[in-house]
Amino acid sequence: MIIVMKQNSTKEELKEVVRRIGELGYHPHIIHGETRNVIGAVGDERGKSVLQSLDSLPGVESVVPILKPYKLASREVSPLPSIIDVGRGVQIGGDKVVVMAGPCAVESCEQILATARAVKEAGATVLRGGAFKPRTSPYSFQGLEEEGLKMLAEAREETGLPIVTEVVNPKDAEMVGCYADILQVGARNVQNFPLLKALGRLGKPVLLKRGMSTTIQEFLMSAEYILSEGNRQVILCERGVRTFETATRNTLDISAVPVLKEQTHLPVIIDPSHATGHARLVPAMCFAAIAAGADGLIVEVHPEPEKATSDGAQSLRPEAFSVMMTKLREFAKVTGRGL
Amino acid sequence: MIIVMKQNSTKEELKEVVRRIGELGYHPHIIHGETRNVIGAVGDERGKSVLQSLDSLPGVESVVPILKPYKLASREVSPLPSIIDVGRGVQIGGDKVVVMAGPCAVESCEQILATARAVKEAGATVLRGGAFKPRTSPYSFQGLEEEGLKMLAEAREETGLPIVTEVVNPKDAEMVGCYADILQVGARNVQNFPLLKALGRLGKPVLLKRGMSTTIQEFLMSAEYILSEGNRQVILCERGVRTFETATRNTLDISAVPVLKEQTHLPVIIDPSHATGHARLVPAMCFAAIAAGADGLIVEVHPEPEKATSDGAQSLRPEAFSVMMTKLREFAKVTGRGL
Amino acid sequence: MIIVMKQNSTKEELKEVVRRIGELGYHPHIIHGETRNVIGAVGDERGKSVLQSLDSLPGVESVVPILKPYKLASREVSPLPSIIDVGRGVQIGGDKVVVMAGPCAVESCEQILATARAVKEAGATVLRGGAFKPRTSPYSFQGLEEEGLKMLAEAREETGLPIVTEVVNPKDAEMVGCYADILQVGARNVQNFPLLKALGRLGKPVLLKRGMSTTIQEFLMSAEYILSEGNRQVILCERGVRTFETATRNTLDISAVPVLKEQTHLPVIIDPSHATGHARLVPAMCFAAIAAGADGLIVEVHPEPEKATSDGAQSLRPEAFSVMMTKLREFAKVTGRGL
Amino acid sequence: MIIVMKQNSTKEELKEVVRRIGELGYHPHIIHGETRNVIGAVGDERGKSVLQSLDSLPGVESVVPILKPYKLASREVSPLPSIIDVGRGVQIGGDKVVVMAGPCAVESCEQILATARAVKEAGATVLRGGAFKPRTSPYSFQGLEEEGLKMLAEAREETGLPIVTEVVNPKDAEMVGCYADILQVGARNVQNFPLLKALGRLGKPVLLKRGMSTTIQEFLMSAEYILSEGNRQVILCERGVRTFETATRNTLDISAVPVLKEQTHLPVIIDPSHATGHARLVPAMCFAAIAAGADGLIVEVHPEPEKATSDGAQSLRPEAFSVMMTKLREFAKVTGRGL
Repeated sequence: MIIVMKQNSTKEELKEVVRRIGELGYHPHIIHGETRNVIGAVGDERGKSVLQSLDSLPGVESVVPILKPYKLASREVSPLPSIIDVGRGVQIGGDKVVVMAGPCAVESCEQILATARAVKEAGATVLRGGAFKPRTSPYSFQGLEEEGLKMLAEAREETGLPIVTEVVNPKDAEMVGCYADILQVGARNVQNFPLLKALGRLGKPVLLKRGMSTTIQEFLMSAEYILSEGNRQVILCERGVRTFETATRNTLDISAVPVLKEQTHLPVIIDPSHATGHARLVPAMCFAAIAAGADGLIVEVHPEPEKATSDGAQSLRPEAFSVMMTKLREFAKVTGRGL
Repeated sequence: MIIVMKQNSTKEELKEVVRRIGELGYHPHIIHGETRNVIGAVGDERGKSVLQSLDSLPGVESVVPILKPYKLASREVSPLPSIIDVGRGVQIGGDKVVVMAGPCAVESCEQILATARAVKEAGATVLRGGAFKPRTSPYSFQGLEEEGLKMLAEAREETGLPIVTEVVNPKDAEMVGCYADILQVGARNVQNFPLLKALGRLGKPVLLKRGMSTTIQEFLMSAEYILSEGNRQVILCERGVRTFETATRNTLDISAVPVLKEQTHLPVIIDPSHATGHARLVPAMCFAAIAAGADGLIVEVHPEPEKATSDGAQSLRPEAFSVMMTKLREFAKVTGRGL
Repeated sequence: MIIVMKQNSTKEELKEVVRRIGELGYHPHIIHGETRNVIGAVGDERGKSVLQSLDSLPGVESVVPILKPYKLASREVSPLPSIIDVGRGVQIGGDKVVVMAGPCAVESCEQILATARAVKEAGATVLRGGAFKPRTSPYSFQGLEEEGLKMLAEAREETGLPIVTEVVNPKDAEMVGCYADILQVGARNVQNFPLLKALGRLGKPVLLKRGMSTTIQEFLMSAEYILSEGNRQVILCERGVRTFETATRNTLDISAVPVLKEQTHLPVIIDPSHATGHARLVPAMCFAAIAAGADGLIVEVHPEPEKATSDGAQSLRPEAFSVMMTKLREFAKVTGRGL
Repeated sequence: MIIVMKQNSTKEELKEVVRRIGELGYHPHIIHGETRNVIGAVGDERGKSVLQSLDSLPGVESVVPILKPYKLASREVSPLPSIIDVGRGVQIGGDKVVVMAGPCAVESCEQILATARAVKEAGATVLRGGAFKPRTSPYSFQGLEEEGLKMLAEAREETGLPIVTEVVNPKDAEMVGCYADILQVGARNVQNFPLLKALGRLGKPVLLKRGMSTTIQEFLMSAEYILSEGNRQVILCERGVRTFETATRNTLDISAVPVLKEQTHLPVIIDPSHATGHARLVPAMCFAAIAAGADGLIVEVHPEPEKATSDGAQSLRPEAFSVMMTKLREFAKVTGRGL
């Protein structure tokens, strides 16, 4: 932390801040500036009392954090990229770009099976599908719950595709973990800490989506919750942030890919469907994501988008998905990766 | 819903959209425009299939929602303002401005008792204090949990102030409800739907905080989750939204007060502490909130902010709180209310 | 500036950064931390080479600014509040809350005269009206230009109200200055530096509106452009920032009032009309602004809002304005001010 | 426009709205809904009185625009992509991806010549460099002005690269146009309408940057200002929008590429330097932009970024630029384009 003193602060105020820094276990280091004094508080700030509260001492103008607050998620602790094995021969973060595809919600056995076959045929290696749906409206379809998970498991049996599905309540974590190969934390739950802790204790791969207004640093702190409980299998997913723009559902923060790659060893994938909200914009964002260095994609595909119970407008038809995948293979090749 | 067709869409495409609208149970109403056709889909959209998915039909340019998606929260259903009785003689939404005050986190019996006495003395009528703390970092103090709730209950016994405290896990709702007079849903949990449903079934007053990037409409939909489970005692709380500005922790959306008052019958209070992040900015925002028509405030007060385990920088000292309250009384009087 | 070195940076990299800091005229001050080194660069950064570019040296992780970049606008240079005399007995920033009112655009002699009489009657002390209108669409009404200025001057003659009007092109500054008592810089021009410089040389009071996504710091830097040309008569105006929320046209950043009051000696007023975009929300925001400590308001009033050439939806009718003013007087009194 | 009436609005209110719509030259079309009435106002809204002001009539709940307000910029008017010829054999929007490169500011003859040679060698086809610099601080380097333009012209003579440079004051448009092949409008001037009009009359290609908080629709309206003055040579440039995220200088809105391609015939390029603010993030964003379908890039390159007078931190060194270009060529090839 750097504590900036007010221009007109007194010697006594400075002395008190210095005393307090020492009391909290840090080494104060005063820099006498031309217009004001600045104090560096040296020492690992993580896991200790927060120096931020020094802001309320007299004479203090501001307190500026210097160090990143996460440890286990950082490149400094793990310089090499993590590769997450999700079973059935699929690895995330390695040589191959992973494409997860499927409907927003599992609606019926036929729907999920038909989609699973189609996306596998086109080259997807993980099947997505929601059984617990967090919906803005209490009057909207909330998902088939455990019945939906059984349908997903059936589709896995037939196609061999591992499955990723969302969990919304900490009490369901274990049950969902019995079916799923990857447990997804949705954007709305990125700071649902009881849920993160439950998944941290489960030991299954977790797909953690960034929230609509989560900073990169907060996002990594949420990953840290899972990691610090002992589960190192976390996959990060950027899915668009909320801005003033209304032409798209959210604004895909594509620069999050190189920023995250720099700061963390965890794999990073992109969800272009929720980011844009319109199926016709999805292929371009898939290409951009892979060109930017993402480790994979999670894409909504539905056999009949106009009849979907949720998010139809952003779901690709299987044919469009297949065309996208053909081109995606070429972009992936330029980055030195296969699908 | 209004469905806008593309300029070059065909008659067949229009026909198919019209057919589909009817199939979903709405009456289509075509307006032939100079440059394109527009279809009005008449019928209550709430609780039915989402017309939004028509966006994926050929020839459709955009789908524009017209009606508000909430019912029970709306002024149309309940034209008169709701008054929530939280016990011990305190009502929210009525003739008196309610001020909830106390520390961010319950830290010890002495701390909460001292604060409770001080804020009561200054005129607060509800005591706040967190026992379950959702913290960005897993390494930060997470709260005293049930032990903290017991300390709060003790402070209530002594001072007579009803207590408001946060619940973060649906499984704890009942237990927290045994101690609290008002259960708080934090900004990060505004779309934690299992939690909202659990509180909807509990039948105790709920203080629902707006999320950092929750629109007014989504906020009311979250309230609707609680209301639709049968619990009509919901208090809304604006606590700042996330913007590009960094001079304050968040940006207090003060215009949310008249907007919410227009759209809903539920009481609305303001949290100036989380909104600004700096104690010295809190009084001005308290005055603005009451002048704008808010039904109350929730303010962080700590006897020694520089030693607080969380949010010290934004906590008022008891003396500053007391000074603020004296002036607040005058502003409240202009609005025709007491404290 | 604080330069944070990477954890694995070498001694040579550190040495080079230190050398470069000295070369630029600052005193480097190394703090050896537990996990990395941090260098404080002491010396007034304003007006010198930007240390930010050290970010591109090898081994540097980040460069964190410490000092505020403005001088003349700061409280440190002028601790006492500035009072701006705009003529005809009106001062801004002093004992009286100033209310500027009038139509968005001057449309005709009758319209501006009728409005001027009405707002004066209700207690406004400055007349607003646009003759040069920056409109999003080239097909919208662009203002009556100099003819409109003449109508404003006529209204001033009759009512004695000084006038505030917008200037959009540096070449018109002098001409507009011949008519106006206060020259307004609109939100879209807050970083139109040639315009700011032209007004800085003019020596007439300037009403500077904050841009839709201008930070407080950038806002003060724009004021600094005017001040540094020798014109000390700058009035700041917050008029809402752009956020994700669509219930209001912009989001009024009411906390900008105490933040600005802390950082600058310049008076601060609020524009609730552009902030909210809806006349019915305007009174509550007027009250909030004054309660928060603003020095005044600028409010759109139109005799027939439904016929206005621009911004009708956000214009108060004279009767509603008058009712608002009556209540406003009471709020102002609590702050110790008159109207 | 769609006018939504309040649920409890009266027949007289409806009648008055209908009357007023007719008076303004539109055909009203009433849809009687289950809970409220909705009126469609058919007729081209562009260039006419704004129906938005009907919002202030009694009984009206909201006014929802349906049509896009731009004409000349739209795909409906010009279905085929526009190709802009900037001279010296360079076309933008055609078969070749265009890369504009050079320093943020022209600092000296040696600097601009060295950079020009280097970027040409690496494959850039347009030279960028600022002579008029809009800087946040009045104390920062403001550019070499006409002297800088002469240096740019000299660099063009030697290398054959056409030059793009910014103009900030309408009065300089003609003079800058004497030197530049493409005139750039910076993000801060995207709604500087006098400047847009001046460039609309000049007849030289214009590179129009999106503002930090400009919506896609407002961006196209700014282009419409130039087009409607008779100049059809407009190149759009996305350069990052302002969000809450601080890891990057701005947030690159990469989805603006397919959105703009859908709505307009004008070419679209990306500025990854201003978007990210960090040179090390630039290459990934270049690749993403081209993969997403952009027509080109504008990239900051400086021989010694750590000595740059502005924006050093985001400038690539020539060697890094060259490496980026090699890989870029491969991505461009996948999209069917050369460099």
